[in-house]
Amino acid sequence: MKKLINSPDTVITDALRGIASAHPELTVDIENRVIARAEKVPDKVGLVSGGGSGHEPLHGGYVGHGMLDAAAPGEVYTSPVPDQILLATQAADSGAGVLHIVKNYTGDVLNFRMAAELAEDDDIRVVSVVTNDDVAVEDSTFTAGRRGTGGTIVVEKVAGAAATEGADLDTVARIATEANERSRSFGIALKAGTVPAAGKPGFELAEDEIEFGVGIHGEPGRERGKLAPLHELVGYALDAIHADLPVDGDVLVIVNGHGGTPLIELYGAFAEAVAWIEGHGARVARNLVGNYITSLDQEGFSITVTLLTDELTRLWDAPVSTPALRWGM
Amino acid sequence: MKKLINSPDTVITDALRGIASAHPELTVDIENRVIARAEKVPDKVGLVSGGGSGHEPLHGGYVGHGMLDAAAPGEVYTSPVPDQILLATQAADSGAGVLHIVKNYTGDVLNFRMAAELAEDDDIRVVSVVTNDDVAVEDSTFTAGRRGTGGTIVVEKVAGAAATEGADLDTVARIATEANERSRSFGIALKAGTVPAAGKPGFELAEDEIEFGVGIHGEPGRERGKLAPLHELVGYALDAIHADLPVDGDVLVIVNGHGGTPLIELYGAFAEAVAWIEGHGARVARNLVGNYITSLDQEGFSITVTLLTDELTRLWDAPVSTPALRWGM
Repeated sequence: MKKLINSPDTVITDALRGIASAHPELTVDIENRVIARAEKVPDKVGLVSGGGSGHEPLHGGYVGHGMLDAAAPGEVYTSPVPDQILLATQAADSGAGVLHIVKNYTGDVLNFRMAAELAEDDDIRVVSVVTNDDVAVEDSTFTAGRRGTGGTIVVEKVAGAAATEGADLDTVARIATEANERSRSFGIALKAGTVPAAGKPGFELAEDEIEFGVGIHGEPGRERGKLAPLHELVGYALDAIHADLPVDGDVLVIVNGHGGTPLIELYGAFAEAVAWIEGHGARVARNLVGNYITSLDQEGFSITVTLLTDELTRLWDAPVSTPALRWGM
Repeated sequence: MKKLINSPDTVITDALRGIASAHPELTVDIENRVIARAEKVPDKVGLVSGGGSGHEPLHGGYVGHGMLDAAAPGEVYTSPVPDQILLATQAADSGAGVLHIVKNYTGDVLNFRMAAELAEDDDIRVVSVVTNDDVAVEDSTFTAGRRGTGGTIVVEKVAGAAATEGADLDTVARIATEANERSRSFGIALKAGTVPAAGKPGFELAEDEIEFGVGIHGEPGRERGKLAPLHELVGYALDAIHADLPVDGDVLVIVNGHGGTPLIELYGAFAEAVAWIEGHGARVARNLVGNYITSLDQEGFSITVTLLTDELTRLWDAPVSTPALRWGM
């Protein structure tokens, strides 16, 4: 295993030290592993997300104006613990309640639920929205039902914008739910990522083999197949999404790298996605192309499609200032 | 070779199609390979850069308000041709002259010079600044003298800010020169990138071996050595920089991924860089952590240090809106 690390034991702590130094607008509690906005916004619904590490910039990179108030990063590919999520919830709370945005993995759902109960004991009202946008498989290694992947970024952005506008907790939760319901994702891996503590790739693929429908922790997808030209891979992903939720009208498209795939290839994938979507009579109204929800050094990509409404477009366009997304201010 | 491409022949065209679709604020001439701002700013000094492709987001990702006016991407790791650079220069020209920002590689320097002569025939005044911030080696595979690498981003940012403020061509060139002279870089590779047309990595490293001082096209560095803990690698890079230009006062630090290295590791590297720099009595006043000048899917990182002045800090902080850098607006 070749990695830029001091040791597998210090990967998270070292990254959190780096995040703390790079982003003085954030407060990073390295010991308890909570990343929060340095300045609390009074009377705003707080937004908290979290999950295993290894998906950077998710979620810490989305803490800031117009998006999350706090994030709880667990060990690599491992859920944060309830006390840690409680601390993040307390950091995000300014009296208007807190939304938990939880990717649908069994450990995450359980630990966020326990944290929500602890927060209620603390008189913080919590509503949870579970994201499950990945159409690849029903049930998976760590999940009952569908997995939450790239759609989570859309949920965090639009819910964050709504909270920033002053919407109440139920409204913010309604918007988060709607964004999740209108988002679908599909991922394809060329080479698995390597968890530092494991020291070898999560799965092995032959030189001409790829995994269709891979999860963000290297969970198996629908099938293994042969490497094919990019337009066929993008077509496979979008066919899978379209079969589940027809791609129609104005859509937001995220072409996301898994961490080990360079931007030049992601732009090529985006070009093919636009061609596919326009060929199906829809319009790519908004986009992101880059590394937004990664799987360590995995080579591969995912596509997320969100069917926009006027309200979702407006909230997507609203100003945001976080380490990983910044516009309008 | 596993890549997300249609074929090695279409990599650049496919990426340019993607860039065109993703960024409507840019005009992309796919046939002639010029990326320019869709709206020309009257009476502003124009800024043009370019070079081989495979370093994305460099340079196309830095075209926009406050930075470049046009970029000319060549074939992968290959200089753009003079006619192409001339088109970029014409696109950038609005009557106040054009600055060419050229990374020091023999082909780039030659082709930009020819393009500058063609532009002068066209009554466009051109001044060129050649970047050569990489301290790793004197002379290299494609270069007489030092190579231009991460410092080029700093040069493009501060010169772009000066031009946006209304500075004249000589002033913009003076600031670009100063930013280059105050910047130093050093890169370390864990695994070489693969040029699509070549089909295999540019060089081979054993499982425990790394390249110290690697160039952005996989050129050899100072030596091959053993993989070591991250703080030692960062120390090696900063020692090399410090020996050439003492790290002192307020500095800008860019911890840059080569394309195949995930963000979690880059943040760890940044933490070690901050510790080293503070331990040497200097202060990290500004930073970037992420993929800013890549080498296809190469695994590794580089560190760029710029010794700031009040003027450089102000110009770095000035509003910028490009695909890859955006703040203040």
